[in-house]
Order: sequence, then structure tokens, then C-alpha cells
Amino acid sequence: MDLTDLREELAGSRLIVDPDVIEAYRRDQTLVVEPGHPVAVLVAESTQDVAAALRWADRCGIPVTPRGAGTSLAGGAAAADGGLVISLAKMTAIRELRAEDELAVVEAGVVTADLDRAAARHGLMYAPDPSSHEICTVGGNVATNAGGLRCVKYGVTRDAVLGLEVVLADGRVILTGRQTVKGVTGLDLTSLFVGSEGTLGIITAVTVRLRPRPRHPPVTVVGGFDTLRAAGDAVANIIRDGVDPSLLELLDGPTLRSIDEWKHLGLDGTEAMLIAQVDGSDADERVDEIESIFARNGSDTVAISSDEAEAAQLLEVRRLAYPAAERLGHTLVEDVGVPRSRLPQLLETIEQTGNRHSVTILTVAHAGDGNTHPTFVFEPTESGDAPPQVWAAADEIFRATLTLGGTLTGEHGVGLLKQRWLELELGADTVDVQRAIKQTLDPHKILNPGKAI
Amino acid sequence: MDLTDLREELAGSRLIVDPDVIEAYRRDQTLVVEPGHPVAVLVAESTQDVAAALRWADRCGIPVTPRGAGTSLAGGAAAADGGLVISLAKMTAIRELRAEDELAVVEAGVVTADLDRAAARHGLMYAPDPSSHEICTVGGNVATNAGGLRCVKYGVTRDAVLGLEVVLADGRVILTGRQTVKGVTGLDLTSLFVGSEGTLGIITAVTVRLRPRPRHPPVTVVGGFDTLRAAGDAVANIIRDGVDPSLLELLDGPTLRSIDEWKHLGLDGTEAMLIAQVDGSDADERVDEIESIFARNGSDTVAISSDEAEAAQLLEVRRLAYPAAERLGHTLVEDVGVPRSRLPQLLETIEQTGNRHSVTILTVAHAGDGNTHPTFVFEPTESGDAPPQVWAAADEIFRATLTLGGTLTGEHGVGLLKQRWLELELGADTVDVQRAIKQTLDPHKILNPGKAI
Ligand SMILES: Cc1cc2nc3c(=O)[nH]c(=O)nc-3n(C[C@H](O)[C@H](O)[C@H](O)COP(=O)(O)OP(=O)(O)OC[C@H]3O[C@@H](n4cnc5c(N)ncnc54)[C@H](O)[C@@H]3O)c2cc1C
Ligand SMILES: Cc1cc2nc3c(=O)[nH]c(=O)nc-3n(C[C@H](O)[C@H](O)[C@H](O)COP(=O)(O)OP(=O)(O)OC[C@H]3O[C@@H](n4cnc5c(N)ncnc54)[C@H](O)[C@@H]3O)c2cc1C
Repeated sequence: MDLTDLREELAGSRLIVDPDVIEAYRRDQTLVVEPGHPVAVLVAESTQDVAAALRWADRCGIPVTPRGAGTSLAGGAAAADGGLVISLAKMTAIRELRAEDELAVVEAGVVTADLDRAAARHGLMYAPDPSSHEICTVGGNVATNAGGLRCVKYGVTRDAVLGLEVVLADGRVILTGRQTVKGVTGLDLTSLFVGSEGTLGIITAVTVRLRPRPRHPPVTVVGGFDTLRAAGDAVANIIRDGVDPSLLELLDGPTLRSIDEWKHLGLDGTEAMLIAQVDGSDADERVDEIESIFARNGSDTVAISSDEAEAAQLLEVRRLAYPAAERLGHTLVEDVGVPRSRLPQLLETIEQTGNRHSVTILTVAHAGDGNTHPTFVFEPTESGDAPPQVWAAADEIFRATLTLGGTLTGEHGVGLLKQRWLELELGADTVDVQRAIKQTLDPHKILNPGKAI
Repeated sequence: MDLTDLREELAGSRLIVDPDVIEAYRRDQTLVVEPGHPVAVLVAESTQDVAAALRWADRCGIPVTPRGAGTSLAGGAAAADGGLVISLAKMTAIRELRAEDELAVVEAGVVTADLDRAAARHGLMYAPDPSSHEICTVGGNVATNAGGLRCVKYGVTRDAVLGLEVVLADGRVILTGRQTVKGVTGLDLTSLFVGSEGTLGIITAVTVRLRPRPRHPPVTVVGGFDTLRAAGDAVANIIRDGVDPSLLELLDGPTLRSIDEWKHLGLDGTEAMLIAQVDGSDADERVDEIESIFARNGSDTVAISSDEAEAAQLLEVRRLAYPAAERLGHTLVEDVGVPRSRLPQLLETIEQTGNRHSVTILTVAHAGDGNTHPTFVFEPTESGDAPPQVWAAADEIFRATLTLGGTLTGEHGVGLLKQRWLELELGADTVDVQRAIKQTLDPHKILNPGKAI
């Protein structure tokens, strides 16, 4: 591959060919996926340079892997063999923040939490808050339609995106969407690119919708339960009663024990924990409701935060779940979701499937959305993959999820990890339509080939 | 055209060829658009019959006009010459309503308000409420991504759609989306079909997201203002302070006078009226805030509802706006929107443009969304079209809207009406991409040709 042509067209962006440096851009956070060996990494500094790189790659038929922070849990940012990685991580300008219109135009590489902090200086918030928000990028969030903790009330990334600047496979730069909160001129290309996992174009800038920060800091309510089912029922009650929590997370027994062995919080005997937050000016009323729903479902250990610091502190245990699992071995973080009333059934299926295959599974869930993260813990095989019983258990859980009317991925994406199950969920004709659209936008199949669709 | 083949493939749906009956399916509510003469109307009773009809039309190259209730204000449902109209209005089954999962699966022909009433029986609501909700269909709303009054708080139709059953141009039936609140498997085809105005496929069923009905009935606050700008500023304050109204409508002076001449409500001298609703359990607090924002911006005539009946009654004046305009002559209802801080500028532009061209324009606005409906009143030309000065004024308003960072259509769609301005908003490359997608999904261009994109 001749990089000279490309190098000549770039205006400032760094093109890396040093194999040691390239190594740092090969993988994302998906341990079980083995990436290819790219020949170069472009650390883009401008939309024009991304466009130049795609024009070049399209002409030469070079596969391109768009990359934000590489926190993907689906192998979405795993580099293509012989390809070019395009990192957006250095495109971090906040081009515009118009508080009066509750919007900002930001480059793809802006770190999610930085955007929220910038909004906070104007009394606003950027709602999407994946647990990775201190490291992941807005562009990566848009490309995966990332969820997060407060999306149970404020929606997923899609709901916070008004428009995009996208570089197409052939290097053309288009704008999608608008700066108004409503608008229906033409097809909704914005939504098409949101969640497309780098397969249709490279997102270089995003017009995001901001919203007023809640006037009252969140109050956290924590309850321990004797059974998973009791916790699942409490979730159903909270939704059904319209309590409208701004966060509603569940941790199962194995997760609680993994945390307890590490931090000794005295969680012993608790088989499930729910953590809820409410943030309205009528928070007190809603806290009472949650407390009584918890009690009705047999929870005895209820804690309620009395100030903002304590509200954050009570959430700490949730943030310990991932690192606690990682202490036990290699992990495969899964992401299946079901209609909310079926959450108790899904949780039981996960537990039973783990037992049947003698696989350790720790489950946390964005319970208010019916979205679970069963985390498989294992010793890797020599090739770095998960052992067969992990994949067998995962396969059974995926199929059970679909039988329950659910989805293979609530927020992490298909990436490389779930391609083989794609058609099971979507059906052959729907997959066909998706691939036809991909073919239209990327006829030479250079954009993140083999991923997502 | 030989309809025998088609007739043989149908299982129950009525195929109408009687010219008198066909006449009733030719037009929608867009007076200035002259539709073609279709050769037949299929009143579909099942997805299979829609599929059979599209297979036939695709084979024969017959243009197809999908039709809900025909309330389009953009000529979207104006019939194609020599074509087949497919009416979904008789597909009215609510296939499923699962209160515990806050979702329903309904056929495209269900009337919007009927769906909301069905949801209400379970304490739930279907949020999208276009002013036409007692007559328009859910399928038509999805095809146009309809807005409405309470979308300032609860979002547009897109936000209430989880998935679709769609018949493609070649007769294949696909499912898009899911039954979970979150999910990212594959491309977001659901959003692609939402708002596609019948150009990509025919929607036969919709999985809608329901939500808890507000616990407290809405409280209505009405304020009269001396100037449009003062009312516009009050809107900006309400948004900026995070009051989160469930409805925020504006009526301008000419609109108020047209209502007053008819109903004698004593609105004389008022140059703008704002109607706000709040519906949370902290409604009282928010009503106080609105009242003081109104006062701060010079409103003296504030009315606050004291019960549910009065809340509805105070909204009545808003519902009179359309019929009051229609009393004055033929109307062209426009639909331009801007970022909210620019609403006062847009309102002034509309007023000045009307004066300059001596065209009567009455404006109401979904002010909380920055979406205005300038309604042009005129005597039609012999061909039924609007006179040139109306189009000249409309053209100027469209261009001014785009200069303000706005959109040609906030909720009504492009239809036939705005095709000639499409590229002005989207740019040539974005239009290209949209047409390429259209070409992929409808290679023989049978679906609502000449509309939207
Ligand atoms: C500890 C931890 C917690 C997490 N918690 C959550 C969570 O709560 N919710 C959640 O949804 N996810 C979560 N994730 C997953 C991950 O953080 C998200 O998928 C995130 O959106 C990825 O952002 P990124 O910048 O790291 O993108 P990357 O990982 O670099 O890329 C992700 C995908 O997007 C593509 N892509 C990236 N940038 C662009 C661009 N500018 N244009 C086009 N395509 C692009 C890539 O090709 C890849 O397919 C978590 C991950 C970790 C490690
Ligand atoms: C008095 C009045 C008030 C209105 N208020 C509002 C408002 O507040 N907000 C708003 O957004 N709109 C409003 N409208 C416009 C109109 O009601 C909406 O656009 C509505 O969504 C159209 O629904 P319908 O069933 O009448 O569809 P139609 O008018 O029959 O069709 C609309 C478009 O959708 C296509 N279509 C219809 N059904 C299908 C289907 N099943 N599959 C594929 N394509 C289909 C048609 O081809 C056409 O392009 C109003 C109209 C009137 C007359």
C-alpha cells in the first residue's frame, strides 16, 4: 500500500505507521475479539482530512476502521487487517454552545463527560451517560447509539442528537438533521447514521440537544431483596405506577458477592439490589412511593440519601460492578434486553443457564429499560477466546431473549461479536434491506467491513 | 390497465373503480394542490392484500398513493395520475395492548385519538396529538412523523414508535424495530420509514410506546400580550428556566381578531396570546413560574384554570384558530420552524412579509418547539391555486426561515408542496443520498412518486 498519495492530501493530521504505536489502536475493550493488523493510523484533526483519507481509501479499496476512544464492548472498533484506522479522538472542539437554544455543535472526539460539564456551566445537561462517559467520545456514542444510567428518564443518545456532519465513503461531506427541535424535511438520515457503528460514514461533528439540568439534585434509594424475582417485580411496579425514576439499576447476587469479597460492604445474603434515583421537584413524594414499593416486595434494607454527596455515594456500589467482575478473570460483557415485564424471566434464565453450563455470570441491569448486562467470567483459551461453554451459554441466553420478545443488544451494538446472531433477531428480509442500504452508501465496502450488518 | 390480475390476488379487500367513489380518495386537505386521476382505490383489509397490490403495481409499473385519512396539509396524499390509491383506513385493529410493557401493536388505520382512548383505559396515554387527532390515522402520523400540542414535553410521533410492519415496493413484508424500549441491533430502519411520507414502503402496523397518563390533570395558563415580541420573549424564558410545560401555544393578533370577529370573546387589542399547560404533581409551583414570566413580559390578562374542564375550555380558543381562518377564505397552512430563541424574529418576518405583499397571514405556533403555522388566506385563482403574491410571500418566508437556521417543515412534511425548496434546506449531496436510498428501496419508483424527496 502506498501511503504517499494520502500523506500529500493531508493538512495537518498525523499519519502513524510505527508498528508500536499502531498496536495501541488495534483493539477495543472486547477481550474475546482478536483484531487484524492495520497498516496505518490517521489521527484526524479536521473534517477535510477525514474526507481526504476516505477518498483515498475508497479509490484504493482499503478497509477503514473509524475509532473514538476504543471502549466498544462489541468489537466494533477492532481494526481491520491491512486497513487504515481513523481516530477521531483529537477532534475535540466544541464549535458552538447556544444555551438559549439548548444545543451545541461538537466534534466527534469530545469526551462525553466533558460535554456534560460544558453544558453544566450554562445550567444545562447532556443527558446520555454511558458508564464509560469519562473516557468515551460523543462520536462513538452516536455511532453506537449509546445508552447509560439516566436514559430510563432522558432517553438514549439518539434522543439527544439533532444533526450530524458525516463524511461518506467517497469523501463527500454531508450535513443531516437540523438545529430545530422538530423538523421533517426529507428522510431521517440522522437516525440512519446513529447506531450504524461506522459502517455508513464517519461522523465528524454532532449537533446535540441539551436540556435544563434537573433543579433538584437526585435522591438515591437503595433496596436489598431476597430473590431476583422480588426485585424484578419491584421494577415492574415502579414503571407501572409512573414513578418516572431518573435511574433504576439492578445488581444480582453474584455481582453483590463479588463486590463484597473485595470491599466488605456487608452485602451478604442479599440476592438482588435495586438502586433508584428521582430528580424532580416532587422527589420526596416519589421517594416515598419507591420505598413503599420496595417494602411491598419484601425489601427490608432500604437506604435513602439525605444530600447530593450521599446520593452519589449510594450509587458507588453500581460503579464497582465491572471492576469487581474483572478481578475474578477475563470478562465478556453481554447486553440483552427484553420488554420490561419479562425482566424477571430473563434474569432467571440467565441464572439457570450459567448454572447448567457451570459458567460464572454476574448480572447488572439497566432495569428500568429491561436491558441487562450478564457478564461472563472465565479463563481464556490459548487464543484469547472464551471457552466453548461460555459461548454455548451465551447462545442459549440470546435465543431465550429473542423468545421473550427481546433484543440481542440494548446499547453496545452488534460489532464483530454478534454478527452470527443478527438474522435470528431481524429476519432475512430485514437484513437484506439493511445490506442494500449499506451497499448504496459504501459500494466498495471499505467502511468497518464485517461489522454490525 | 388490467385490474383482473390484481383482483384475483386479493383476499377480501375492496377494489373500487367507480369514478364517483374514487373522487373521494383523490385529494387531501391541501387546497392548493391539484391531484391526478387514479384508476382505482384499494381499501385494504389486510397486510397480505397490501403486499399483493404492491407486487402487482411493481410488476406493472403503476404509481401507488398510500393514504390514511387524507388530512395531509402538504399534498402528501394527493393521488397520482393513472395510479392506485391504497387506503389503510379500514385496517383498524388494535392487535395487542400490553399495559405492563407500556406498548401496543396497532394497524395503520387506527384513528390517533382512538388509540389514546384505548390506552387511557389502562391508565396510559399515546402521547402524539396532532390537532387532527380525531380524524387522522396512526399510519399517516408515522408516515409524516406528526407532531402535535403536547410534543413539547412528550416528543413527536417518532418518539412513540418502537417498531413497524412495512410492505416494501416489491411486496415483501418486513418488521423493523422491537418491543423493548432500547435496542441497537442493525440499522435504525424504523426511523427511516417514519416521516418517509409513503415513498419507501407502506406501513401496515405500528408498535407504539405508551406512557403513564400524567397523574395530575393539566392546568392551563393563558396570557395576553401587547406585542408579538413580548410573547416570544416569554416563551424563551419558559424554556430557559426549565419549566417543562406540556403544551405551549402562541396565537398572533390577526388570528385573535379572526376568532373574535366570529365568537366575540373580547380579545380586542391583544397582539399575541400564549397558552401553556403543565401537568406534573408539582404543577402549582410551575403555574406560579409561568404567571410571573408572563407578568415580567408585560402580560396583564392572565387566566388560570381551576379544574380539568376549565383547563380544556381555556384551550378552546386555540382549536378555533383553523376554522376561524377558513371563514375568511381559502387557506394555505404553512409549517416553518426555527431554533427557539429565533422565534420572535421569525414571527416579525412573517408579519412584515405579509404586509409587504398585501397577503393576509394568521399565525399560530407550537411556540415551545419553535414551530409556526403561518396560515395564508386568499381568494383562489381559476385553477384553484393560490395567487402569485401568496407564493412570493411564502417563498420569502421559507428563505428567511433557513437563514435563521430553521426548517421548511416542522411536522406536516414536504409532500408535493415543498419539493421545489427541498435542496435549499438539505443541500445537493444530502438530497442525492436520500434519492439513492429511495432508489434502492423502490427501484421502479412506484411509491408516492414526486413526493417528499
Ligand atoms: C467500563 C465500560 C462501561 C460502559 N458502559 C456503557 C454504557 O453504560 N452504555 C453503553 O451504551 N455503552 C457502554 N460501554 C460501551 C462503550 O463505551 C460505548 O459503546 C461507547 O459509545 C463507545 O464510544 P467510543 O468513543 O469508545 O467508541 P469506539 O469504541 O472507538 O467505537 C465504537 C463503534 O463506533 C464506531 N465509531 C467510533 N467513532 C466513530 C465516528 N466518529 N464515526 C463513525 N463511527 C465511529 C467504531 O467503528 C465502532 O464500531 C461501556 C464500555 C466500558 C469499557
Ligand atoms: C385540522 C388539521 C389539523 C392538523 N394538525 C396537525 C398537527 O397538529 N400536527 C401535525 O403534525 N399535523 C397536523 N395536521 C396534518 C395531518 O393531520 C398529519 O400530517 C397527519 O399525520 C396525516 O395523517 P393521515 O392519516 O390523514 O394521513 P394522509 O393525509 O392520508 O397521508 C399523509 C402522508 O402519509 C402517507 N401515508 C399515509 N398513511 C400511510 C401508511 N400507512 N403507510 C405509508 N404512507 C402513508 C401518505 O401517502 C401521505 O404522504 C393537521 C391537519 C388538519 C387538517
